[in-house]
Amino acid sequence: MIKIGIVGYGNLGKGVESAIVHSSDMTLVGVFTRRNPKSVHTYTDVPVYGMDEIYKMKDQIDVLILCGGSANDLPKQTVELAQYFNVIDSFDTHAKIPEHFENVNKSSEKSQHVSIISVGWDPGLFSLNRLYGQAILPNGKDYTFWGKGVSQGHSDAIRRVEGVLDARQYTIPVDEALESVRNGDNPSLTTRQKHMRECFVVAKPDADLSKIEMTIKTMPHYFDEYDTTVHFITQEELDKNHKGIPHGGIVFRTGTTGLNNENKHLVEYKLTLDSNPEFTSSVLVAYARAAYRMYQQGQCGCKTVFDIPPAYLHVESGEELRKKLL
Amino acid sequence: MIKIGIVGYGNLGKGVESAIVHSSDMTLVGVFTRRNPKSVHTYTDVPVYGMDEIYKMKDQIDVLILCGGSANDLPKQTVELAQYFNVIDSFDTHAKIPEHFENVNKSSEKSQHVSIISVGWDPGLFSLNRLYGQAILPNGKDYTFWGKGVSQGHSDAIRRVEGVLDARQYTIPVDEALESVRNGDNPSLTTRQKHMRECFVVAKPDADLSKIEMTIKTMPHYFDEYDTTVHFITQEELDKNHKGIPHGGIVFRTGTTGLNNENKHLVEYKLTLDSNPEFTSSVLVAYARAAYRMYQQGQCGCKTVFDIPPAYLHVESGEELRKKLL
Repeated sequence: MIKIGIVGYGNLGKGVESAIVHSSDMTLVGVFTRRNPKSVHTYTDVPVYGMDEIYKMKDQIDVLILCGGSANDLPKQTVELAQYFNVIDSFDTHAKIPEHFENVNKSSEKSQHVSIISVGWDPGLFSLNRLYGQAILPNGKDYTFWGKGVSQGHSDAIRRVEGVLDARQYTIPVDEALESVRNGDNPSLTTRQKHMRECFVVAKPDADLSKIEMTIKTMPHYFDEYDTTVHFITQEELDKNHKGIPHGGIVFRTGTTGLNNENKHLVEYKLTLDSNPEFTSSVLVAYARAAYRMYQQGQCGCKTVFDIPPAYLHVESGEELRKKLL
Repeated sequence: MIKIGIVGYGNLGKGVESAIVHSSDMTLVGVFTRRNPKSVHTYTDVPVYGMDEIYKMKDQIDVLILCGGSANDLPKQTVELAQYFNVIDSFDTHAKIPEHFENVNKSSEKSQHVSIISVGWDPGLFSLNRLYGQAILPNGKDYTFWGKGVSQGHSDAIRRVEGVLDARQYTIPVDEALESVRNGDNPSLTTRQKHMRECFVVAKPDADLSKIEMTIKTMPHYFDEYDTTVHFITQEELDKNHKGIPHGGIVFRTGTTGLNNENKHLVEYKLTLDSNPEFTSSVLVAYARAAYRMYQQGQCGCKTVFDIPPAYLHVESGEELRKKLL
């Protein structure tokens, strides 16, 4: 059994906990938190420890899955813990991945452990599909669409608007854009042409609704470059209809082959997810298996999904995989 | 530059030739044929050699791409050539992959070369998606649909029917089955429920059309388990409308997460290909790059797509890939 530790017990940590229940070759040793451990109750009654206890448990843990946030937690936490453990994180600030990679790699090489960063679906499975698509169809174009799904960042931005009590924002790909890509038109798409944004907002009783709507629609970076729809609803409606965290999206690769590029091809990879954090957790858990196996083989250093042989993710042996799945 | 040799100059070999033209890091050394080399003319005027000359050119070739058939050529050819070269093949007789793997592995380990077998889209990219899907969503089900596309084997089977001059057969996924999978119904589907078969047949002038139709529709293994439509057309119409070799298909993984499997997820990987052989060739060429790199690192033995780190397929460095694609 591969012994897993979870660092951070938010949505992602809870998702990892339940994914491990469904993994036949893994066991969960404990959850580590910066909160008072006594205040945290796990779904499966697995023990909760303070972060200061983690180093004592070095020999009881094969892989740590880090479930903190990319803005404030992971840039320090992954680098620190990679000095003692095999670690997996879901660092998703795309622009800062090279820097994070370098920092984590130093720790992992020094400690002779394996780390895998930026694991999930984007970065993660979507990145893989961009890579496979480009490698196989070098004459082509790729497109990534996100949604329909909840953007936590955009929902938070709306909640900070004066007069707003609660909000939920959906990112939605524009149908015409999807059709154009599927038709092989190879369109050049602006931000506005690719995605639209739909907002469900609970306002304070005395709030100026048209002012809230205008503030949202013109908000720089978040909404101003998109066609945005704002619906005002009650807290009751929001709680009833918009409490899930669905997400997903599509990676396309369109390309041509033939001496004169006479044949067209379309690769489409589409995710439709009821729970964004639980799916991300499931990806993290599969890559924890890979980290464990690579460490057992004596490998070390920082890896990404690009570096991991796919067979390492699956519980069955190479022989079984060739027989059943190839 | 990676120096490539092509063995066999049918549709697949021609596809490899043109894919190499579009690969910035590869050069084509020659085509090797069992025919009289003087009778073979390549698109790009690359030299053609008889098979007996291949061993003399050992030091001029980094990777051989074997473009023969799975039934009669590859079981011997890959095993033989793996004793001297790094080789890639597209062996696609699923049931015999384990045996082929063992045989090729012995040759490659002995000669300290790298071989990659069963490369293409199925087996190949579809296999990868079955593997990633199962690894990430262990509680789930996968489905593979083929088409709409031309089945060479079924077209050949029709051509062998008495009174038939020419024929083209399309395999088509049944819409209701696709919708049921996309809806998350987790259906159990019979052969008939998954695919239907559409045949375009050119008959001899005096042939008994209803007898031909009945013979096709009841043909064991090929058609008897499917709903089959037969259209009689002229050779002119066949040549005009059915001379392409399109194909494609979809791999689905549906699965649940959460302690009580309360959240559903759907992964859909879809290929729509104008030219089945040219797309397969493009996959072969990308994996030739991987074989070259693994050999350079001192690896040897037989591999499949399951064993290849995705980054090895792409012309750019790990650093560039992390920056641009992750």
